[in-house]
Amino acid sequence: VSAYAPPVQKLIAELGKLPGIGGRTAQRLAFHLLRASEEDAVALADAIREVKERIGLCEVCFNLADGPRCRICEDERRDFSLVCVVEEPGDVIPIERTHEYRGRYHVLGGALSPIDGIDPDDLKIAELFARIEGGEVREVVLATNPTTTGEATALHIADGLRERTPQVAVTRLASGLPVGADLEYADELTLGRAFTGRRAV
Amino acid sequence: VSAYAPPVQKLIAELGKLPGIGGRTAQRLAFHLLRASEEDAVALADAIREVKERIGLCEVCFNLADGPRCRICEDERRDFSLVCVVEEPGDVIPIERTHEYRGRYHVLGGALSPIDGIDPDDLKIAELFARIEGGEVREVVLATNPTTTGEATALHIADGLRERTPQVAVTRLASGLPVGADLEYADELTLGRAFTGRRAV
Repeated sequence: VSAYAPPVQKLIAELGKLPGIGGRTAQRLAFHLLRASEEDAVALADAIREVKERIGLCEVCFNLADGPRCRICEDERRDFSLVCVVEEPGDVIPIERTHEYRGRYHVLGGALSPIDGIDPDDLKIAELFARIEGGEVREVVLATNPTTTGEATALHIADGLRERTPQVAVTRLASGLPVGADLEYADELTLGRAFTGRRAV
Repeated sequence: VSAYAPPVQKLIAELGKLPGIGGRTAQRLAFHLLRASEEDAVALADAIREVKERIGLCEVCFNLADGPRCRICEDERRDFSLVCVVEEPGDVIPIERTHEYRGRYHVLGGALSPIDGIDPDDLKIAELFARIEGGEVREVVLATNPTTTGEATALHIADGLRERTPQVAVTRLASGLPVGADLEYADELTLGRAFTGRRAV
């Protein structure tokens, strides 16, 4: 008996291509799907197919869209002079929930990470530059994550924009103590940021 | 804009049903699939469908099988008087690789874990008892993992077999120092097991 039947090997291989899913996890997921009801397994397969058939990326901002443009880019009431740059489509939702932002978005599709082989070409950075050079925008808000990769991405974009479109304001989301946090338990990096970014009251 | 389009929500929900895949991971995997090429995403969907169409569980031992019985249960040269009980189909392969075992298997489909809601009814334990009561077998080797859940499962099965088929020998894989290990770096549980299980030389 030499390992698994070809369809099982194939499933383990395909699952293993997913980000963050290693060989052992792929095997565990494959066994789960093998044990799962026909109905549950097919529901997952169909959900993958359907999402690829029905959902694409917005041609303007690369957010998820069920047509050529996402609902935000199609909404004429949004402020077209503001563009908020985020890493993932999932970052748009928490920002929308704040009701603090009425501009549009630009979804990069990740963050720069040379160690993982993610270069500017892998993200929608050239598209952002072209979009801003197209005029109309007066401020770009960099809302990549306050992580090493998110900061590197923000810096790279800020440099590129300063060079190409010096008339456009480039801002970064404030970093500091989360609301409701206890200073005693704040990590030193966050506390350091809170000092650097202190404001007059 | 209220969260994601229905197909995206559906995909996140289906991915979230996989074991060990939480909400945030499901979302990350969904975005990955959305960005992936049509070809890659469809390959995964097809691999899931194909495995469900072509692979099932062996009617005797519940190992993976591309027919009613797995290749091991169909192999007449195997020793039918020995049954090795394992948690997952993935456990059969390393045992086969040792070439130390020529009996058949019984795949439970997991280990008892009340905390995760995995009871005897969720595993192929009743099927094991029925199989052993059917006669022919003289020894059952319990090869569940040397973990808390694996040990609990082995104990539960040993008790059940002692009650139902006292004439059948029930053994457990030896636990102790791995071959090539350095005693200095052994954890105390493993070292304790190595002492308890010490043998005359």
